[in-house]
Amino acid sequence: MSSIFGHLFRLATWGESHGGGVGVVVDGCPPLLPLSAADIQPDLDRRRPGQSAIVTPRKESDTVEILSGVFEGRTLGTPISLWVKNQDARPEAYAEMATKFRPSHADYTYQAKYGVRDWQGGGRSSARETVGRVAAGAIAKKWLRLQHGVEILAYVRQVHRLRAEVDPDSVQASAVEANIVRCPDASAAPRMIRRIEKARREGDTVGGIVEAVVRGAPPGWGEPVFDRLEADLAKGMLSLPASKGFEIGSGFDCVTMTGREHNDAFRMRGGRVRTTTNRSGGVQGGISNGEPIVFRVAFKPVATVMHEQDTVDRRGRNTTLKGRGRHDPCVLPRAVPLVEAMTALVLIDHALRQRAISGTPLVQRVD
Amino acid sequence: MSSIFGHLFRLATWGESHGGGVGVVVDGCPPLLPLSAADIQPDLDRRRPGQSAIVTPRKESDTVEILSGVFEGRTLGTPISLWVKNQDARPEAYAEMATKFRPSHADYTYQAKYGVRDWQGGGRSSARETVGRVAAGAIAKKWLRLQHGVEILAYVRQVHRLRAEVDPDSVQASAVEANIVRCPDASAAPRMIRRIEKARREGDTVGGIVEAVVRGAPPGWGEPVFDRLEADLAKGMLSLPASKGFEIGSGFDCVTMTGREHNDAFRMRGGRVRTTTNRSGGVQGGISNGEPIVFRVAFKPVATVMHEQDTVDRRGRNTTLKGRGRHDPCVLPRAVPLVEAMTALVLIDHALRQRAISGTPLVQRVD
Amino acid sequence: MSSIFGHLFRLATWGESHGGGVGVVVDGCPPLLPLSAADIQPDLDRRRPGQSAIVTPRKESDTVEILSGVFEGRTLGTPISLWVKNQDARPEAYAEMATKFRPSHADYTYQAKYGVRDWQGGGRSSARETVGRVAAGAIAKKWLRLQHGVEILAYVRQVHRLRAEVDPDSVQASAVEANIVRCPDASAAPRMIRRIEKARREGDTVGGIVEAVVRGAPPGWGEPVFDRLEADLAKGMLSLPASKGFEIGSGFDCVTMTGREHNDAFRMRGGRVRTTTNRSGGVQGGISNGEPIVFRVAFKPVATVMHEQDTVDRRGRNTTLKGRGRHDPCVLPRAVPLVEAMTALVLIDHALRQRAISGTPLVQRVD
Amino acid sequence: MSSIFGHLFRLATWGESHGGGVGVVVDGCPPLLPLSAADIQPDLDRRRPGQSAIVTPRKESDTVEILSGVFEGRTLGTPISLWVKNQDARPEAYAEMATKFRPSHADYTYQAKYGVRDWQGGGRSSARETVGRVAAGAIAKKWLRLQHGVEILAYVRQVHRLRAEVDPDSVQASAVEANIVRCPDASAAPRMIRRIEKARREGDTVGGIVEAVVRGAPPGWGEPVFDRLEADLAKGMLSLPASKGFEIGSGFDCVTMTGREHNDAFRMRGGRVRTTTNRSGGVQGGISNGEPIVFRVAFKPVATVMHEQDTVDRRGRNTTLKGRGRHDPCVLPRAVPLVEAMTALVLIDHALRQRAISGTPLVQRVD
Repeated sequence: MSSIFGHLFRLATWGESHGGGVGVVVDGCPPLLPLSAADIQPDLDRRRPGQSAIVTPRKESDTVEILSGVFEGRTLGTPISLWVKNQDARPEAYAEMATKFRPSHADYTYQAKYGVRDWQGGGRSSARETVGRVAAGAIAKKWLRLQHGVEILAYVRQVHRLRAEVDPDSVQASAVEANIVRCPDASAAPRMIRRIEKARREGDTVGGIVEAVVRGAPPGWGEPVFDRLEADLAKGMLSLPASKGFEIGSGFDCVTMTGREHNDAFRMRGGRVRTTTNRSGGVQGGISNGEPIVFRVAFKPVATVMHEQDTVDRRGRNTTLKGRGRHDPCVLPRAVPLVEAMTALVLIDHALRQRAISGTPLVQRVD
Repeated sequence: MSSIFGHLFRLATWGESHGGGVGVVVDGCPPLLPLSAADIQPDLDRRRPGQSAIVTPRKESDTVEILSGVFEGRTLGTPISLWVKNQDARPEAYAEMATKFRPSHADYTYQAKYGVRDWQGGGRSSARETVGRVAAGAIAKKWLRLQHGVEILAYVRQVHRLRAEVDPDSVQASAVEANIVRCPDASAAPRMIRRIEKARREGDTVGGIVEAVVRGAPPGWGEPVFDRLEADLAKGMLSLPASKGFEIGSGFDCVTMTGREHNDAFRMRGGRVRTTTNRSGGVQGGISNGEPIVFRVAFKPVATVMHEQDTVDRRGRNTTLKGRGRHDPCVLPRAVPLVEAMTALVLIDHALRQRAISGTPLVQRVD
Repeated sequence: MSSIFGHLFRLATWGESHGGGVGVVVDGCPPLLPLSAADIQPDLDRRRPGQSAIVTPRKESDTVEILSGVFEGRTLGTPISLWVKNQDARPEAYAEMATKFRPSHADYTYQAKYGVRDWQGGGRSSARETVGRVAAGAIAKKWLRLQHGVEILAYVRQVHRLRAEVDPDSVQASAVEANIVRCPDASAAPRMIRRIEKARREGDTVGGIVEAVVRGAPPGWGEPVFDRLEADLAKGMLSLPASKGFEIGSGFDCVTMTGREHNDAFRMRGGRVRTTTNRSGGVQGGISNGEPIVFRVAFKPVATVMHEQDTVDRRGRNTTLKGRGRHDPCVLPRAVPLVEAMTALVLIDHALRQRAISGTPLVQRVD
Repeated sequence: MSSIFGHLFRLATWGESHGGGVGVVVDGCPPLLPLSAADIQPDLDRRRPGQSAIVTPRKESDTVEILSGVFEGRTLGTPISLWVKNQDARPEAYAEMATKFRPSHADYTYQAKYGVRDWQGGGRSSARETVGRVAAGAIAKKWLRLQHGVEILAYVRQVHRLRAEVDPDSVQASAVEANIVRCPDASAAPRMIRRIEKARREGDTVGGIVEAVVRGAPPGWGEPVFDRLEADLAKGMLSLPASKGFEIGSGFDCVTMTGREHNDAFRMRGGRVRTTTNRSGGVQGGISNGEPIVFRVAFKPVATVMHEQDTVDRRGRNTTLKGRGRHDPCVLPRAVPLVEAMTALVLIDHALRQRAISGTPLVQRVD
């Protein structure tokens, strides 16, 4: 189950950093969705290494091939197999890692768990694993947009100490894609880029925060108790490499508010039940309430730094290791499509689950 | 699936605030574990309403009955059914909620999702639902302690603006249980209690942060990619009522560190691979590394306040509603056993999954 | 997972022969279904011991209590907990089984698997476990009938060497319930009853075949590849105690036909695509085709016979054992509601799954 | 979930008859298993079209590529992606099927379910889909053999009216592979081959029975209640194309025995608990008892016959259709590796599940 996600819209990802490629099998995609590689490639391009000056220079075109599940331009309802070949692999850069564990990477824990690991580029623990998620997520995003008018948008909210000003209710994709750091605050973005360039020059790395907003999700998605919408989103986000925290709506700031300050009052607006504030982040009792779903994810600074660090080797001897290979000084710009993909994968699953139990339009059921 | 959790150690919880009771069926508990109600009752008592002056005065003894799965004092390997009767139900206190949606509660979203809801005490969305989790979690905790020497400890780290000083490596259960707010900082605890009492007097509520630590978990628990240990913990925590955020190890603070500052160096200590710091929070690449697992959960202020608030009714008309019934001014003291229970449920599942693929002791496999 | 069944409509059963009772939690039942104990009790009465002269005389009223999930006479969409108390337990009748393994029972395998077992009445391996399935199945049957007009009917087709003549397309429930052996062939039924009575007199037991028919299922239920409708039915049936075989449509008789003889020709009839024969048994490629779904299940003779038999004890010594306690001379009459229940549980799950991927009526999609 | 199978050892298959290929992702394979394409190819060769004069002449080398999950000759514990390219596709042979439904095929039901289908060679409903199962099954077989000494053997027991004499306790793989029909009865095999050749000459097809035996499985595999070993085997077998029935041990013949005749007496033999007969087929109460696991699967005659047959088209008009393309006159010889593969996939899953709950050798637990 480690590499299978979802309950009705399921994906099984596979592949290592330096093997025959990376890919995904999507099981449970509804039929009749118009789909071609052109629907998937743009998100892969946003995730791709080498896309800009502030990401890793590894050269991968990450061209996706659809191997099954699509016929005459539409999904069949049967499994969709997607494949991206690995091209620019340089295993020799990792020779030292065959015997030494990189600090704050997964080398030691994979070895402890499995008794074996692919040390070339981190093997399965490489961020390259996320190619399959992004490809599957692109399918989910398209279905959500066509079927329900749902829009999913993520963007960089903070890099190191630099915070952007963004209004999740109105931010547009064009503003996110207007710069290479994917921050829609035109004033903060250049400073963030400079901060990342500084980190690279210093052989160091920086972290940050990605915020995401889902607009157009109807009330009723999400399940009570365990499979709450925010619980599944939290799982999806914490399953992303380098993520350390998740918060929805008011998030950790809720702690310093009182109940009177924090509650979202209900008012009728445009014939619909709306809230006047959105500290709930669009989810109440685990179920969407029709407001924008807003959450944030903290990403740590990349663990590979170009400095000597204390570590141990597979024989249990103390030693040191200095980062080599091609790496991102900051994952944030490339994390944006990952957050969108996982969001879409969680949402489509809950959308399908809600369809299973609901025969009539939800809005009519609030009487 | 809304009320089923886990992959190998599975639980199915059931029950509403005012029905015949609440309970849980545990499927997949290993056989031969010594078990009686006395193993479960203490955690239910820590979750119980009416336990102290700073929680809801609803009177429930929450006495657990074991209906199946235990024979001559040991688990059989077959489903364990646990039942707690509801006693002090007062549906009349909720009559107004039959037609009005309480702000920042789940009344509206349940109605939107299902077209029906049990308005008595919030029905299934009541925190009373967590009885089953705590009961199942007590079984998981006992197995983890006996089988692996794992200790799980949660405590209140912050109430409103009051932060406690706690060292997760050394904090003891006795210090947590030494006061009614379950904060092991003897200096902060009384101030927290006064803050909660103030909120109650004002008909208001406050939120806070629970921190948890797991000591003694071996390296190797957790799965790569989707079922990472921190991802499943995040899901478990965000599935708790009133939770708004989750962070592990350095959490959101990782954002303002650089990679050089953030990385956990490896050193041999006591013949084992250890880290000199623990910003990873005991998990690397989704897999435990043998260090204490440390994470925090943000809980919002309780939504029920004793003041008039704007809301709408089921006919879609603007109206107001004032909180009634018996409620907690702060969920934190009672959230502590919930966090422990969900932690235990996540850990036992991963412990069993690791046993499935591992025939030999993990420590030998790091060669 | 041993005691959890289903993907969207899920049940978790629990309970042993001689414990506090038996029950089930149903998770995923659609909301707004009118439901009371009166919908469930009749099927439990058909499964009940002591119902007639040809079943075990154990006295159990098997009165069901609904503990959660129903409010004001309708399902809430949240878990439905059902409980039946054990009444007429006689553990003393099983004292000898505490140390000896009954031949062709599960005593030895439970002991081998778990290292422990409840020897009172077979514990979890008792047919009493099926109470929860029948209760959950009654809910599924009602939903299928109200929502889709689906009728599920099982009946005894053969007892020992006595075969009944039954037309699955026209057989009625009233004919099945017209006699205590539940065989709708009025000529065969009395002979079957005499055969069972003879077995009882001889301290012996007999087996037989239950046939089931589903009428009214629309085309489109079932999934390709692994979760084929017949595959899930086969699993459901082989999960019933004492079942040894399953066949659908032509079943094992297909072997002696050629393709030209076996194929079901398509013809339009009543504006619908129909087949002129039904050797497919209503399922093609794992998916229902709109014809009656017809299958058969073989049940072995009950293992408990009132004669001395060779066996071994827990110390690994050869010994003998003679059947005691109250037992059925033939499971067939009581197996009928079990087969119906499992059929309903499989069908509702696939009905919900089909709703998840299908937004428009299926019949329109065949263009 | 349609194309995902298993609980701990999971596979996701994909691919259509005429697309970019067929494949499988295996998630949950234990690490450190020596594995190369040479372990998988032999079973694919046994499944391959064109392998002999009595199977379809479609030319596919079915050469497997391992794309991930194996490093330096051993499994990593991470997903294993296997791919087989389609080569000899002839979509033009299926042009007529684009509008007409082939009788007793899945054309109509796929169209009814999804509103779309790939009519080229049956698309996903083609037996070509089973390539992924056989590839994954080869991995499972190897693990079961190396880890537990388990041997899985299937063979043709009956073709049309010709029954073979085979002793499941002693039959050897070499006898099965000694002839192209895969029947270890050297006297029956040539007659079966002639019967299949006769069917082909007549443009007709014949069915038959495959029997399988598992030798060396320890006591304790399988779960009570729903996930019984025979229930999962039944599901696996009924998920195979063209299968119509499953029986274990005495199977449908149990019906005409009495309990005294049918019961398997226990006796100590070689220091182990054994049964003197094996009507249980190696499984009691859903759990293996250490005896050979023996079961049979009925396969119908192939639906494609070279004769005009009544059918309807997508517009709902009566018409006729005559079989074209390259087809098997009898699936039995190629079904043998399919049955073995599904058996291995069911067994490895239960073996891993048993490891999860069992810390000590099973044999010691029977005290």
